Amino acid sequence: MSFNVGISGATGVTGEVALRILEARNFPVRQLRLFASKRSAGQTLRWRESDYQIEALEEAAFDGLDLIISATSASIARSIVPKMVAAGAIVIDQSSAFRLDSGVPLVVPEINGVDLQSHNGIIAGPNCTTAVAVMAIAPLHEAFEAQNIVSSSYQAMSGKGREGMKEFLAASQAALGQSEGLRGHETLNLPDPVQFPHYSAFNLFPHCEQFETGSDMSTEEAKMEAEMRKMLHAPNLMVHATAVRVPVLVGHTVSLSAGFKQPVSPSQARQVLQAFPGLSVLDEPQAGIYPTPLAASGIDEVLVGRIRTVPFFKNGLSLVASGDNLRKGNALNAIQVAEQVLGIKQN
Amino acid sequence: MSFNVGISGATGVTGEVALRILEARNFPVRQLRLFASKRSAGQTLRWRESDYQIEALEEAAFDGLDLIISATSASIARSIVPKMVAAGAIVIDQSSAFRLDSGVPLVVPEINGVDLQSHNGIIAGPNCTTAVAVMAIAPLHEAFEAQNIVSSSYQAMSGKGREGMKEFLAASQAALGQSEGLRGHETLNLPDPVQFPHYSAFNLFPHCEQFETGSDMSTEEAKMEAEMRKMLHAPNLMVHATAVRVPVLVGHTVSLSAGFKQPVSPSQARQVLQAFPGLSVLDEPQAGIYPTPLAASGIDEVLVGRIRTVPFFKNGLSLVASGDNLRKGNALNAIQVAEQVLGIKQN
Repeated sequence: MSFNVGISGATGVTGEVALRILEARNFPVRQLRLFASKRSAGQTLRWRESDYQIEALEEAAFDGLDLIISATSASIARSIVPKMVAAGAIVIDQSSAFRLDSGVPLVVPEINGVDLQSHNGIIAGPNCTTAVAVMAIAPLHEAFEAQNIVSSSYQAMSGKGREGMKEFLAASQAALGQSEGLRGHETLNLPDPVQFPHYSAFNLFPHCEQFETGSDMSTEEAKMEAEMRKMLHAPNLMVHATAVRVPVLVGHTVSLSAGFKQPVSPSQARQVLQAFPGLSVLDEPQAGIYPTPLAASGIDEVLVGRIRTVPFFKNGLSLVASGDNLRKGNALNAIQVAEQVLGIKQN
Repeated sequence: MSFNVGISGATGVTGEVALRILEARNFPVRQLRLFASKRSAGQTLRWRESDYQIEALEEAAFDGLDLIISATSASIARSIVPKMVAAGAIVIDQSSAFRLDSGVPLVVPEINGVDLQSHNGIIAGPNCTTAVAVMAIAPLHEAFEAQNIVSSSYQAMSGKGREGMKEFLAASQAALGQSEGLRGHETLNLPDPVQFPHYSAFNLFPHCEQFETGSDMSTEEAKMEAEMRKMLHAPNLMVHATAVRVPVLVGHTVSLSAGFKQPVSPSQARQVLQAFPGLSVLDEPQAGIYPTPLAASGIDEVLVGRIRTVPFFKNGLSLVASGDNLRKGNALNAIQVAEQVLGIKQN
């Protein structure tokens, strides 16, 4: 059995990673179609030793496609995804457009694959930082019932896509030539930031996505609570998130402190985490073994470590988790969802 | 009135920054003496348009010095600082050697300058990350009584001194030539880390200082609680810290969530913070105004922003603070302590 598969936003970094993963996992593709903006239409992308021509998303007909992985902005997804569904495709949408809609399952397969049993054609993947955090929290929530979580994130620049990566690398190159300037910012001469609200090179800022008028939290921070609640079926879970962009290219990290309803020790937590698919526990700090974004980049597993008691939380635990924001945080999760919904066994 | 001043560890980055600050603040220096390891003895450093020859710390006599700013490792400080005090100098020691000794004041002048009234010749400066965090917490503690704090840090590579900075910049240069490798770490070919436990370029790791045998927290994390308690005269304050090294050259940032005994709103907190000397409140996130390490580097003030309520903490507040780890986190604080203890007015 094989499927007609489309990638929407194929020229973006998620599209690129999705193509690589479809190939590496030997995904049963009968026909592949690639969609992107008009600007890219007519260009070709190589996949499994063939060239595929990119179609303009705005003008394409989607008939005959079984599955579309949609990796566009939320505003494009809002206008295009319904047309894809109307044409008969199942759409795994990676944007925030439909994540909180009641008819749309928001799924990490290891956690709530059961929610795939009912959908209206659209299935959403979570925010990339939330995906990493929820992988670490879900098994603990299942066993000990999480009640509240304080999260501080360390989010890679690739969260802003290909243009963000380019701007960051160029700014880093420029800054390296002026390393004295990094010690007293006033003398720095860096290209003006376009993708980011501040210089990205050797800097960080507590600002991911937008701050909506009147809100003191960023949309990124709001997603962490709303999406965790939905995926964990935990409407009362409280999450206070601080989202920070850091000068790492790939790999999102979160520092989490959580309180649980049931008592939990670090060794119990390690057992539960180690047994969970898609997680790898790295927790021997004396030997330098703990999650880092560089170790998490390019792999499927989310890394978890630095598991400790938080004495002043009720049944408190803290931990650090790192995951590849382009893979488990995005394209890999989408493909894992597709495999489950289409009944494809990974070999 | 002027003073005979020594800098111990003069060739290190703290020594270098101390020399610049003494000059910029027009510190009343009668005689300047510079000390470093034998390896550097005989070399000269320039200060106020004169060359000063470096003396070997191990062999030096300290007679006649009124003040020594000591910026060596804790182990060197332990053996040398007592000799300096015996020779009649007041020593501002920036290492961790004496910070928690009962006869030794541990001081940030804006916070607990009153503790300088009694000392035995040694005055300690705090850990660089703790200095940034305690500047943000002290005025809130004074007004609302902090009870517990969750801290996640974003610590610059310069916390590992000049050699750390060199290794980090060289690794960054090497990694920029292999940016594809940053997307899947296995193909990266970077120089082996010496100063850091992992590749420092475009990476981060929850590992600052050491993990002592049997402890699941780093010595850096332990300092945050012990030093805050001492400086704030708050023996029951609970601090749960996660210390993370990030690929920033200068400027330590902390993401803090704290519970207070008294009710406190974000606007009350902003008022109290804005009124505190040495702090600057940057808190208009919609306009991209909040602390960043690049904005904090090279300046005296600690920057505070992203001030919000934490709904599930008792009287909970969260905030982000950034400060120059080489200045307020180190040399600047030492010189401010010296000014207060010697009765020097800043003009």
